[in-house]
Amino acid sequence: MDQMIDVETLRSRVIAVLEQFGAAPHAAKAVGGVIVDAERDACKSHGLYRLEGCLRVLQSGKMRGDATPTVHAGCGAIVEVEAHHGFSNAAFAAARDTLVARTRALGLAALVIRDCVHFSALWHEVEDLAQDGLAALSMCPSYAFVAPVGGHTPLMGTNPLAFGWPRPDSDPYVFDFATSVAARGEIELHRRAGTPIPEGWAVDRDGAPTTDPQTALDGAMLPFGAHKGSAISTMIELLAGAMLGERMSREALEFMGDGGTLVPRHGALIIAMDPAVFAARSGRDPLAQGEVLLDAFGAQGARLPSQRRFQARAVSLRDGIRLSGSEMAQLEQFEREGPAMFDA
Amino acid sequence: MDQMIDVETLRSRVIAVLEQFGAAPHAAKAVGGVIVDAERDACKSHGLYRLEGCLRVLQSGKMRGDATPTVHAGCGAIVEVEAHHGFSNAAFAAARDTLVARTRALGLAALVIRDCVHFSALWHEVEDLAQDGLAALSMCPSYAFVAPVGGHTPLMGTNPLAFGWPRPDSDPYVFDFATSVAARGEIELHRRAGTPIPEGWAVDRDGAPTTDPQTALDGAMLPFGAHKGSAISTMIELLAGAMLGERMSREALEFMGDGGTLVPRHGALIIAMDPAVFAARSGRDPLAQGEVLLDAFGAQGARLPSQRRFQARAVSLRDGIRLSGSEMAQLEQFEREGPAMFDA
Repeated sequence: MDQMIDVETLRSRVIAVLEQFGAAPHAAKAVGGVIVDAERDACKSHGLYRLEGCLRVLQSGKMRGDATPTVHAGCGAIVEVEAHHGFSNAAFAAARDTLVARTRALGLAALVIRDCVHFSALWHEVEDLAQDGLAALSMCPSYAFVAPVGGHTPLMGTNPLAFGWPRPDSDPYVFDFATSVAARGEIELHRRAGTPIPEGWAVDRDGAPTTDPQTALDGAMLPFGAHKGSAISTMIELLAGAMLGERMSREALEFMGDGGTLVPRHGALIIAMDPAVFAARSGRDPLAQGEVLLDAFGAQGARLPSQRRFQARAVSLRDGIRLSGSEMAQLEQFEREGPAMFDA
Repeated sequence: MDQMIDVETLRSRVIAVLEQFGAAPHAAKAVGGVIVDAERDACKSHGLYRLEGCLRVLQSGKMRGDATPTVHAGCGAIVEVEAHHGFSNAAFAAARDTLVARTRALGLAALVIRDCVHFSALWHEVEDLAQDGLAALSMCPSYAFVAPVGGHTPLMGTNPLAFGWPRPDSDPYVFDFATSVAARGEIELHRRAGTPIPEGWAVDRDGAPTTDPQTALDGAMLPFGAHKGSAISTMIELLAGAMLGERMSREALEFMGDGGTLVPRHGALIIAMDPAVFAARSGRDPLAQGEVLLDAFGAQGARLPSQRRFQARAVSLRDGIRLSGSEMAQLEQFEREGPAMFDA
């Protein structure tokens, strides 16, 4: 039976479970916060559903839940944070104030997250920066499941791209999407249901289009938007992989190996910009200009990305989060049994 | 009858014509260079075909071909250049060395081009920076011809996005595309030919899909890649319009008015990154890592963006550029008649 749970109560319980499984308090707070925020926003794919994976990875020995991120502030426009095999969210939390200060000082700055375990959606970080008045672009590689347009062998990840823009009187403008045409999980759902996938999602091992989910999983997923999306996915691989000197998607897939536990270990890149500094010489108010565009979207009935998420958030903050009986039972099992439950 | 002309000969003649029509030598060199480079690379849509428009704009009084760009180097990560109603290319040429130096010093820097007339493709600038070892992202608004997904009224431009990445032993990785699904000129060609446009290119005034080119031109073009492309186009409008305090696509369209002469007057944003600085702490060679990915593209037969352009360039540099009889006749008319030819 479904149960309602207060957002902050769920947050405390998820953080406590993460600590119980070996995450340091700062790391548990960061990654648990992102999981609960996604659940609050009705992003089920990045919500409580992700907790078990996090706990398994904590137990796998392939990451360090107790790592303390090291911030290298340097003196240029690049702030770096070494995650030391810890969660990306903990690394971001450790470096975000330095990034914000540097961005305000120089107008533009980048945060390089090194050697992190990347479980979360990117919208969380760009929304956080937009709430502080900054525009931000975020990207990272993932696992090589996607072939370039015209190819047949997976070379790129589903490489998410996120962007946030501050709005003075409402929730920020935020988008966050995979640069593959679909998520791998969606293909898996079709496989289990025995239904074909839509055309354009994937190719077989020889590069021929396929609508069979198993053939797609054995072949390669495709980027969104044909050659344009393929180019953007390639750019993400170059900027957030090669440029940082961190793992690219092919290496991340090799690192994961066949062991079963998904350990998304690579780097991430965030570019933050201060509109107030960029616009200063123009004499115009950049955020007011943004409102002209975004208000006009609404006036013609076009939905803004993340709009549904912000609406779900308002409901969750008012009424609490609805969890299914099995979701609640699983949370209680984590709390009751602790790390021993994965020993079997 | 077709004629072959040497690249440098064509360059000198185009530059001389631009000067004859009122462009200052530095501006003629910059914009003429971009036009001839596009023609050399078989990018006909941005080649010699654009010269007449440039000359008409020079004569329109809506721009200043003799403007001297002012570089504001500042001391942060933002370099600004005021084009003073001159060509964007001249402004870029004036500021690019400052941008390169700032990027090498800080790891990351942005170039803001203010109040320019923007005739060219963006690949030229990112290729130039990539030839100097930098990764670069470039974007600008254009005219409001594109509706957001779910809408029906044009609010955004065809907003191009370009990216360049240096390759040690070959032409850089460069892409440059409109974030609309098609170019406006392609719809116009269908209208003239009386053929329908493909589904997904445009909607009518009420937001309903259309394949009729005139209905499309009266309605709105669509972004590439559905809601993902729509989000990217929105981002370009916000970053390269609102954030800079420069005209957004709707204002650029209003500025152009009904006068007929196309004067694409707005700003542009270039973000340059130095992979050597970004990767320094990793101990890896970022360009060598990029090669692993890009070589693997080639190995499976996937074409890289701009590959066809670089191949055409090699042929043009060896054999010269092939111009049609009418292209050559028009060039000769510009040379013979000068600005007086637009008086009629």
